[in-house]
Amino acid sequence: MSTTVSPHFEPKDADFAVRVRASFALQGAMGTLGARLGAIEAGLVEVLLDWAPGLTQQHGFLHAGMVATALDSACGYAGFTLMPADAGILTIEYKINLMAPAKGQQFRMVGQVIKPGRTITVTEGRAFAIDQGREKLIATMAATLMTITGRDDVKN
Amino acid sequence: MSTTVSPHFEPKDADFAVRVRASFALQGAMGTLGARLGAIEAGLVEVLLDWAPGLTQQHGFLHAGMVATALDSACGYAGFTLMPADAGILTIEYKINLMAPAKGQQFRMVGQVIKPGRTITVTEGRAFAIDQGREKLIATMAATLMTITGRDDVKN
Amino acid sequence: MSTTVSPHFEPKDADFAVRVRASFALQGAMGTLGARLGAIEAGLVEVLLDWAPGLTQQHGFLHAGMVATALDSACGYAGFTLMPADAGILTIEYKINLMAPAKGQQFRMVGQVIKPGRTITVTEGRAFAIDQGREKLIATMAATLMTITGRDDVKN
Amino acid sequence: MSTTVSPHFEPKDADFAVRVRASFALQGAMGTLGARLGAIEAGLVEVLLDWAPGLTQQHGFLHAGMVATALDSACGYAGFTLMPADAGILTIEYKINLMAPAKGQQFRMVGQVIKPGRTITVTEGRAFAIDQGREKLIATMAATLMTITGRDDVKN
Repeated sequence: MSTTVSPHFEPKDADFAVRVRASFALQGAMGTLGARLGAIEAGLVEVLLDWAPGLTQQHGFLHAGMVATALDSACGYAGFTLMPADAGILTIEYKINLMAPAKGQQFRMVGQVIKPGRTITVTEGRAFAIDQGREKLIATMAATLMTITGRDDVKN
Repeated sequence: MSTTVSPHFEPKDADFAVRVRASFALQGAMGTLGARLGAIEAGLVEVLLDWAPGLTQQHGFLHAGMVATALDSACGYAGFTLMPADAGILTIEYKINLMAPAKGQQFRMVGQVIKPGRTITVTEGRAFAIDQGREKLIATMAATLMTITGRDDVKN
Repeated sequence: MSTTVSPHFEPKDADFAVRVRASFALQGAMGTLGARLGAIEAGLVEVLLDWAPGLTQQHGFLHAGMVATALDSACGYAGFTLMPADAGILTIEYKINLMAPAKGQQFRMVGQVIKPGRTITVTEGRAFAIDQGREKLIATMAATLMTITGRDDVKN
Repeated sequence: MSTTVSPHFEPKDADFAVRVRASFALQGAMGTLGARLGAIEAGLVEVLLDWAPGLTQQHGFLHAGMVATALDSACGYAGFTLMPADAGILTIEYKINLMAPAKGQQFRMVGQVIKPGRTITVTEGRAFAIDQGREKLIATMAATLMTITGRDDVKN
């Protein structure tokens, strides 16, 4: 009861990892952050990030906005892994709880699908800071995505 | 009844604008985004941003994470204007609704205090895209802030 | 800039108030709460509530869940006023900030549409407690709604 | 990586279950809902609920507000299990994602602490509908709580 095991999801398109990598590469913001993809599974995507002076808040820690940006990407691409090949994806909304300062040298964001749907997909994210080799949970996210089909302007 | 007028707030420290500018200047992330401060009033702060290729998502619009980062800053500094001179501020959580693609050349984020408090302050934000001179509401935020006193590591 | 005026919305169905009243009357939970409708405009709905011993939390104030239930209804029906006559509505998610104890004899919840859409509608809500005749803001909500057409099981 | 195991928390007061039951019994709203406590562990509380005609929305399913009320209680009391004996608790805010209609005869809400803190505690909740003996996830919640000490009016 006190354990949540990630459910097994069946992807609609076997090439989901290729689609995720292609879309990620088009995001200028991910390049600016120096973010890169880690694990890509059906319903789960990791985004990895290193500390850099251009990503800080006023105390020198990683800016919460950078945490949220990378975590939102992880959630969005987690949803994207389960969508049809011709679908685009929009984040309708997300909510983030910032539980500890983003103090560390590396950061690992994990997005997971909780409930896939034809129109609406619900995801959750966890952000971890790795400080001197120790990993700590620093933020949680709940993000709601919408699948878009038949619109070229939002095809990923 | 269908109109919300911003309440009048009494700042605890008359030099709040100086404190906001000093803290903002320390944020490496704001420099990376090219974000700058607009209006600074008691309980209200504007953050301004220009489109740039390093801030985009896969369709070339401003990345939702950049919208959220600038809007979160506007909300946080809105709360900061009403805090005592020696206080630091932490964003506990925020929620953002993304209502339209961030399509435009300039962006204006407005953060406003809804309810200040000794420990907890509630703020709301509005993000506007300016496209060919026309301003459009693209996102709303609700952010919860905590005032921190007596801790040097989170003094702004 | 520091003032938000409710935008003017054009309803798709002139009989929206009739539809709101009919749907509201079918909700057993609204009867249990003793909630009733106040103003019904295009894009705005009020829900009114009185204190009762069966609606309290452990200190005798109105339970936050009752505040949220009535406020969620106000937001949902605000969205419903702008939908086509044959549409149903689902709340996808909401977020509530509880800013003060719900101390009072009467309560007024106001839901307003911020951005209507064919599929997704974004709304905001304000809950007020009326204590000895003085009205106080006690909670704010952001709620995301989905319009459903062609499904009898969710037709309102 | 794709599995979340509930962390082990050390309660500050060994009699936490007694405190939870005493506070729960004082909530008139829980009586109106017919809600009752299930498991009470350090950092985890279950709230159980049966379908009743006075708890319905317009299609006869459990009203989302009733789901949220019981789930918010589960989250709040989960946080309460880890607080000192003389502390009170306030829900600052919560966010709920409604993923499926609350169709069923019984409902089980589970609240769990993600990050306890001296002032701020972050919790997550899961709501399940039990329909003809089959349990289905219908909602997730993220709730932020504040510990209050030295104030009689919010002592639980």
